[in-house]
Amino acid sequence: MATKRVKEILSWYKSDNPGTVANIARMLNHGTLGGTGKMVILPVDQGFEHGPARSFAPNSPGYDPNYHFQLALEAGTNAYAAPLGQIEAAVNNYPGEVPLILKMNSSDSLYTGEADQSITASVGDALRLGCSAIGFTIYPGSNERKQMFEELRELAEEAKAVGLVVVVWSYPRGGVLDKKAETAIDVAAYAAHIACQLGAHIVKVKPPTDHIYLDAARKVYEKEKIPIGTLAERIRHVVQSAFDGRRIVIFSGGAAKGEKEILEDIKAIHEGGGFGSIIGRNSFQRPMKDAVKLLKKIMAIYAS
Amino acid sequence: MATKRVKEILSWYKSDNPGTVANIARMLNHGTLGGTGKMVILPVDQGFEHGPARSFAPNSPGYDPNYHFQLALEAGTNAYAAPLGQIEAAVNNYPGEVPLILKMNSSDSLYTGEADQSITASVGDALRLGCSAIGFTIYPGSNERKQMFEELRELAEEAKAVGLVVVVWSYPRGGVLDKKAETAIDVAAYAAHIACQLGAHIVKVKPPTDHIYLDAARKVYEKEKIPIGTLAERIRHVVQSAFDGRRIVIFSGGAAKGEKEILEDIKAIHEGGGFGSIIGRNSFQRPMKDAVKLLKKIMAIYAS
Amino acid sequence: MATKRVKEILSWYKSDNPGTVANIARMLNHGTLGGTGKMVILPVDQGFEHGPARSFAPNSPGYDPNYHFQLALEAGTNAYAAPLGQIEAAVNNYPGEVPLILKMNSSDSLYTGEADQSITASVGDALRLGCSAIGFTIYPGSNERKQMFEELRELAEEAKAVGLVVVVWSYPRGGVLDKKAETAIDVAAYAAHIACQLGAHIVKVKPPTDHIYLDAARKVYEKEKIPIGTLAERIRHVVQSAFDGRRIVIFSGGAAKGEKEILEDIKAIHEGGGFGSIIGRNSFQRPMKDAVKLLKKIMAIYAS
Amino acid sequence: MATKRVKEILSWYKSDNPGTVANIARMLNHGTLGGTGKMVILPVDQGFEHGPARSFAPNSPGYDPNYHFQLALEAGTNAYAAPLGQIEAAVNNYPGEVPLILKMNSSDSLYTGEADQSITASVGDALRLGCSAIGFTIYPGSNERKQMFEELRELAEEAKAVGLVVVVWSYPRGGVLDKKAETAIDVAAYAAHIACQLGAHIVKVKPPTDHIYLDAARKVYEKEKIPIGTLAERIRHVVQSAFDGRRIVIFSGGAAKGEKEILEDIKAIHEGGGFGSIIGRNSFQRPMKDAVKLLKKIMAIYAS
Amino acid sequence: MATKRVKEILSWYKSDNPGTVANIARMLNHGTLGGTGKMVILPVDQGFEHGPARSFAPNSPGYDPNYHFQLALEAGTNAYAAPLGQIEAAVNNYPGEVPLILKMNSSDSLYTGEADQSITASVGDALRLGCSAIGFTIYPGSNERKQMFEELRELAEEAKAVGLVVVVWSYPRGGVLDKKAETAIDVAAYAAHIACQLGAHIVKVKPPTDHIYLDAARKVYEKEKIPIGTLAERIRHVVQSAFDGRRIVIFSGGAAKGEKEILEDIKAIHEGGGFGSIIGRNSFQRPMKDAVKLLKKIMAIYAS
Repeated sequence: MATKRVKEILSWYKSDNPGTVANIARMLNHGTLGGTGKMVILPVDQGFEHGPARSFAPNSPGYDPNYHFQLALEAGTNAYAAPLGQIEAAVNNYPGEVPLILKMNSSDSLYTGEADQSITASVGDALRLGCSAIGFTIYPGSNERKQMFEELRELAEEAKAVGLVVVVWSYPRGGVLDKKAETAIDVAAYAAHIACQLGAHIVKVKPPTDHIYLDAARKVYEKEKIPIGTLAERIRHVVQSAFDGRRIVIFSGGAAKGEKEILEDIKAIHEGGGFGSIIGRNSFQRPMKDAVKLLKKIMAIYAS
Repeated sequence: MATKRVKEILSWYKSDNPGTVANIARMLNHGTLGGTGKMVILPVDQGFEHGPARSFAPNSPGYDPNYHFQLALEAGTNAYAAPLGQIEAAVNNYPGEVPLILKMNSSDSLYTGEADQSITASVGDALRLGCSAIGFTIYPGSNERKQMFEELRELAEEAKAVGLVVVVWSYPRGGVLDKKAETAIDVAAYAAHIACQLGAHIVKVKPPTDHIYLDAARKVYEKEKIPIGTLAERIRHVVQSAFDGRRIVIFSGGAAKGEKEILEDIKAIHEGGGFGSIIGRNSFQRPMKDAVKLLKKIMAIYAS
Repeated sequence: MATKRVKEILSWYKSDNPGTVANIARMLNHGTLGGTGKMVILPVDQGFEHGPARSFAPNSPGYDPNYHFQLALEAGTNAYAAPLGQIEAAVNNYPGEVPLILKMNSSDSLYTGEADQSITASVGDALRLGCSAIGFTIYPGSNERKQMFEELRELAEEAKAVGLVVVVWSYPRGGVLDKKAETAIDVAAYAAHIACQLGAHIVKVKPPTDHIYLDAARKVYEKEKIPIGTLAERIRHVVQSAFDGRRIVIFSGGAAKGEKEILEDIKAIHEGGGFGSIIGRNSFQRPMKDAVKLLKKIMAIYAS
Repeated sequence: MATKRVKEILSWYKSDNPGTVANIARMLNHGTLGGTGKMVILPVDQGFEHGPARSFAPNSPGYDPNYHFQLALEAGTNAYAAPLGQIEAAVNNYPGEVPLILKMNSSDSLYTGEADQSITASVGDALRLGCSAIGFTIYPGSNERKQMFEELRELAEEAKAVGLVVVVWSYPRGGVLDKKAETAIDVAAYAAHIACQLGAHIVKVKPPTDHIYLDAARKVYEKEKIPIGTLAERIRHVVQSAFDGRRIVIFSGGAAKGEKEILEDIKAIHEGGGFGSIIGRNSFQRPMKDAVKLLKKIMAIYAS
Repeated sequence: MATKRVKEILSWYKSDNPGTVANIARMLNHGTLGGTGKMVILPVDQGFEHGPARSFAPNSPGYDPNYHFQLALEAGTNAYAAPLGQIEAAVNNYPGEVPLILKMNSSDSLYTGEADQSITASVGDALRLGCSAIGFTIYPGSNERKQMFEELRELAEEAKAVGLVVVVWSYPRGGVLDKKAETAIDVAAYAAHIACQLGAHIVKVKPPTDHIYLDAARKVYEKEKIPIGTLAERIRHVVQSAFDGRRIVIFSGGAAKGEKEILEDIKAIHEGGGFGSIIGRNSFQRPMKDAVKLLKKIMAIYAS
């Protein structure tokens, strides 16, 4: 049965159907972190986003869609997120063994225009494939944001009606935003908030820097002395911006980097009250044994 | 991950969507018997079928829909089956904690005409409430059988398309069938076969007697010397009649009776290759502690 | 804000949409009994059921649909229930002034065949007219019960999806049931239970007699010594049969009768834990002033 | 490529969609008789119709749905026909290996009222399972014939629109027809004609006797001296009644019987211009080796 | 029955309906290469894409839609792919004789704007015409890619539900891509990967050059020392990029050229583990006899 902490988290989703709440519970209760209220998710959509070689050549067993199911199981992640084809190609070998998040939209690096994603799966696909959640990326700031927000709105309404969870990747990008703005603390907090306002159950953002992008925001951060000096403080601010911590907010690991650096980030996320991490390239681009070891270390921090 | 036996069972359902197979796996892997390939299910539709006092007065906490979730969890049954209102009234207190079978049709004892059931829930309800399966009763032999088979056909097609499991209660009744015919070995085996032909993933029948009802059948049973002398032999024959054991067949406990008698039946079901039991009145009409104790004994037999 | 008792009652409806819970709250918080967790509802469908003269000649202002809105407001009933035309004809004069229950099906006395009702309104009508709930009558035991249960199932699913409350009048009638059976304690408790199983939020039944109709039930009532000697005891049993009191059960006043008799019934309903009354003919067939006086007396009992 | 005879047969179906014609071709070109314009089909719906023991105990490997696919493949029948569950349970092990006819309606022997069948599959099921045809039984003469004809009409229209073939089992039964009437030559010819009129592409009837049932028909048979003395003559008459031989008419083998008797029937059917046979019990109730041997002998006759 | 290799290939499509798997099997088992797991497909959509004279004047019998069916049959290709009208105009002359791929979208050379295609057929057309698969072209990189991916998503979901196969032509084009980029190895591998992620069962790409287009990709190719020096090495990389070879990837022949050059390409594709070729202009622009001879030589390489 659910732990006290899981029950507390679930209590924030009372307006949802029982099926949706059950699927949030399923993810919170699964794997190594099951019951802690923390989450580590394995996302593998980089093949689509960056191309196969950039994604899988560093650890070539990852070309096989079965590999990522095995990694998710071996490491005990709370869920595994991937696009349609990648799930279709392996799901039957792992029936009901790990909660699945079907990524509903995807971008690719062959197109270099305004930040946008294509819809590549349906809620019907999610049900047919036995997924617990749909995943959707929005690019706040993009000239295509209106279309993206509205696509999410429609899919989220449909998903909630059939008991699925809505996980939103909220990545400010496009429009007038420059690279530095994308991870500015005010922008990251804002992106988390927008995802919550759009009805996300779980929000994924990038760990923010201490840069402040919007002038109007800077005045307030300074006047109100919002602490953003350390990563932990910034995480706390992002979590607060997600309905005062009443929505699950998890953080991406970003580009592949050294283990020490990763674990320091995780400690800060944990200290700042983040709900967990979504670790893609830093796990599946390492050999399975190393990836599992790293994920276990990450989970140990969250479980502490 | 799935045991060898669970994998073997799942291999019989290859024509189904991954979502449906995942939900079969979810039920096979849940609870005390998880992974054994055996199932004990708690069904509580007697309130609707026999009225509240006949069902719950012997153990009055059972009037509360929460009680049966607690019993299912305490005993570790593979699933809990109930009609719409009873699940709606308590499901939020047990999010994702036990696989649910939404009973889609129900009969009541205030009506005494031809054996028939009313449809009381939809596939949409099953999704909204986070159920793993729909449950449907058919009455082979009834003058209403055509309507019932066709209602099942339609709901089953809809359920399979969205990744749900179809559990069929196959109870011969009505038409020219007398009481003795309803549990005759040829009739019970036939009832199991019909449910399989209608596309059921899991079939529930009553433990058969050694009576043979149809004259045309009796000739064959005698000529082919089909062994039906013991309950174990009859169970084996019913399981064989369900696509040579390639569909999950479970057996009801029937009217409330003594523990010794029940356990002997279970031993015979287990010996005959039955996949498990669905134990309603014999569990929820006992005090919780006694019910859990009895269910644990039943499960110990199946796990042996 | 909601009283502790109202909050407790609303906690039983957690699987429902916020809109539905809000409408239950609206009814519980409206009028003289607002906040007490008790309800008195004014139903005026007798014009359709018994004809206009039988219904309104005793107090002819009742011919005017505006009259009943005024009565409901004057007396401070929690809600007013009526068929389509009667609400359409007056609702604009009382915008948002009293929670409305749109009666979705109706019978009439010109037809004397098997007990059944015709569907006379839609969920769309309920929304368009600003109603808080739909009302639906079922006749358990009737040869038409299957059709009625299935109509309710479909309308209830639709109503819940748009945030409406489902109020079920559960009146055993038809089939082999005789007059005496219709109000037998076992039948009344069963009728309340069936309505709950069909997903009703609020159930209306008749106050039961101490007659027991079903032989199979009598054995249990005697063996388990279920107390049914007084009306209060019987009310308590009916409420228990409605998911152990976790659904709102209210009782009809029945045929017009003397004030003293009525108030004694109300006291017994209140003592037995009933959630309130639905008072039709005993209110609108009296002059407004008398009716209001009587209703206030009834409410005073429930508020005590 | 198609033989001259197959091309001739296909030329009778010019009003059909290319997909339907392709599926007729697929059946005509498949297996041992491929290209001859003759057909032997393996139907296994007796489990549903007569019960499992009566059907499969004489040759118990037949309890397993895989067995019949293997038999169809081993013998090289043109197609295999079965109800929904039996196909679902094995089809994935034989992908695209034999043309499939999904039996859309079925009767059972537990019900003994007026001759009728329940619809147990949909056109969507046929597509999802990769079938070439739907199979439907009608009972001309039954009090339920109107309903059956109309069900067929609707399914046939739907099937033809998506490129499927419509195979009709036309079995006069019920109403005022007695046992002898069911296979009377005038009735059998009439049954074949009705199936053609209802839009069947392939018609299955029983080999007729020389009995004439309808008085009005007898007068004509005698006046016009229609030759019906031998089985071959009667077959010729039935085929002529099916649009002058412009619809494929095949004949059932009936109850299990001796090989010699069967082969004589086949010779007569062949001599009379019948298009082939549908051999159920006489094949799957024999050991596989014997069944294949018999089917090969039957095919040799048709190929001669 | 299926060969071991065909069974292995089919095992990659376990999440699909039996009907879809049967249609993949049908293509793998048809024609000269039937059973080898290799495929040669005849596509004739150049009339639409390049205009009739450019396509058919070099071998004028090709103006006649019947010609291409004959070519496919004569050469024994696994399938024949064409747009709607071209199939409609000849399909009835070749009923069920060759698996058909209905091309669902097409571009033309009269329009010279951004790379895009128009939808020119429906899934209903594919069923009505008896096709085994739908074919769809995407242009990764194009400014219209979002619309194209989403059109494919919708048609693929529909096609899979009715048992059809989804064949995707993945041709990077448009946007900022220049001619050289279109066949760069990183782009070709990426294009194959995108088609797989979108749920394609069979992917068609162009044989890649050793050019690397994306800077970000080049770094990885160099660091990981991915061998791309020979065509066989590049084919191997593309196949690996298609879910580690768990999706069927076939290669186009490109512009018409000399036989020697073609056969060398085929050998490299075969050596690199490619699943086959789709040979359009190089076959139908030659006289029938020469085309068949060339196709047979190509098939001989794949069969070796």
